[in-house]
Amino acid sequence: MSEPGEARPLAIVCGGGRFPIEVARAAAAAGRPPFLVGIIGAADPSIEAFAHVWLRIGQIGKLFSTLREQGVADVALIGGLTRPEFADLRLDWGAIKRLPELALAFHGGDNRLLAGVAAIFEREGLSVVGAHEIAPQLLAPRGPIGERAVTPQAEADVRMGAALIAALSPFDAGQGVVIAKGRVVAVEAAEGTDAMLARVAELRAARRLRLSGPVGVFVKAPKRGQDLRLDMPAIGPQTIAAAAKAQLLGVAVAAGAVLIAERETVARAADASGLFVAGYAP
Amino acid sequence: MSEPGEARPLAIVCGGGRFPIEVARAAAAAGRPPFLVGIIGAADPSIEAFAHVWLRIGQIGKLFSTLREQGVADVALIGGLTRPEFADLRLDWGAIKRLPELALAFHGGDNRLLAGVAAIFEREGLSVVGAHEIAPQLLAPRGPIGERAVTPQAEADVRMGAALIAALSPFDAGQGVVIAKGRVVAVEAAEGTDAMLARVAELRAARRLRLSGPVGVFVKAPKRGQDLRLDMPAIGPQTIAAAAKAQLLGVAVAAGAVLIAERETVARAADASGLFVAGYAP
Repeated sequence: MSEPGEARPLAIVCGGGRFPIEVARAAAAAGRPPFLVGIIGAADPSIEAFAHVWLRIGQIGKLFSTLREQGVADVALIGGLTRPEFADLRLDWGAIKRLPELALAFHGGDNRLLAGVAAIFEREGLSVVGAHEIAPQLLAPRGPIGERAVTPQAEADVRMGAALIAALSPFDAGQGVVIAKGRVVAVEAAEGTDAMLARVAELRAARRLRLSGPVGVFVKAPKRGQDLRLDMPAIGPQTIAAAAKAQLLGVAVAAGAVLIAERETVARAADASGLFVAGYAP
Repeated sequence: MSEPGEARPLAIVCGGGRFPIEVARAAAAAGRPPFLVGIIGAADPSIEAFAHVWLRIGQIGKLFSTLREQGVADVALIGGLTRPEFADLRLDWGAIKRLPELALAFHGGDNRLLAGVAAIFEREGLSVVGAHEIAPQLLAPRGPIGERAVTPQAEADVRMGAALIAALSPFDAGQGVVIAKGRVVAVEAAEGTDAMLARVAELRAARRLRLSGPVGVFVKAPKRGQDLRLDMPAIGPQTIAAAAKAQLLGVAVAAGAVLIAERETVARAADASGLFVAGYAP
């Protein structure tokens, strides 16, 4: 039992990308050194800077026994994971015991999968917490992040993108869209943000999408009703590079609801490419 | 003036693909031999089997003077056209006179562009007619087109796809989506159907989208409120080939609202690939 005022023991289940280590550092800096669980094949070796264990995605029994041994109370699930096919999971005994819940979670969109996974954690007496609760300094603020603000020309496209993401919400699809001069150019689904922005760059390069000069915005926001503890949208330096290649005017994210990895690098990259990056009031 | 009972002189403005010539043949077979206007760089040379003229897309003045000379009353706009950038149009004098209307039409999605173009035709005293009015035999029927029907497993995905397309309608985006087991896998925007299906095939091949065996459906339907005279969704043999490469279970289109090019070839290709192709009651 943790005492009032004492930090609750925290574990971070680490998928791919830079966020797990950024969140772990922020937690440690705030006096909550976390225990990290690296997903084999996804997490970066840099997680070994903290107390850690490596597990396959199907080792759910081992995961819970490890978290119990460590006395963990709160768990954060951070970083990208290629959605596995249910049949590909190599399940350990603890996973097989939870098979009906797992099978149910795997039918449907990502929100449903994540909600199912969260419910499994919670039945084990663990609280699932979000990156924004552990490291709120990683969230997008309102207003410009680099030196450029949203241009008046782009403002309407940002509003349209935000409305489109809201309309897609009931279908558990799409956290990102590209809008140019009132036209929907791309909608993100299973391919992910980077692939979607690369597509826009290719369509423009091939003149299959005829737009002159920098135009259009990439808008990213959580789906309405999305559980931010489980799946918080994120951007990072590679997002700015991809948006620049797509010759966009800028990147707009829902303030307080999208994580920014390596914020300083993001700001400098945007400034260097002539793009705005900004949080808009959702 | 055309007499009652006499067929009104018909012109077809021809973009790319096989539809212009299919529609022209159907019109001729029904006793309305059309005059064809081939868009340079888009229309197929096969249109020269009919009375025709070739024009650049910016030659709007020449277009209307030609249609007047030919005594045309009804105009159909058929076939694909890469949406031009307004600044790239090489406008003739007749186009320049209509510049304010053209500029307005170019701001926004495809529906708005097409509605603007249709209004320009109508102000010249021409009626814009759709392929479905000239050649209703090209429309998707209800039920299976090849030998396979929609499987019960796919039925829910078809319904979800149809609902998603309806939800996207206010944004003038997306006539096609791929749904697999209740999950939105891809949403079509500027890239078009073939590129979207190729993306699904690539994501599966690269195991970035982990789905085993044939699963998922491609659903195509007009946006709600879409003017079918101007932009009727269409599928053809290449759609079936792309859906087969994406390892889908089948293709479902809104009955009475989607054109099927080369229907016999489509049916045979679907049968050979083990896919269903079917029209669903929208």
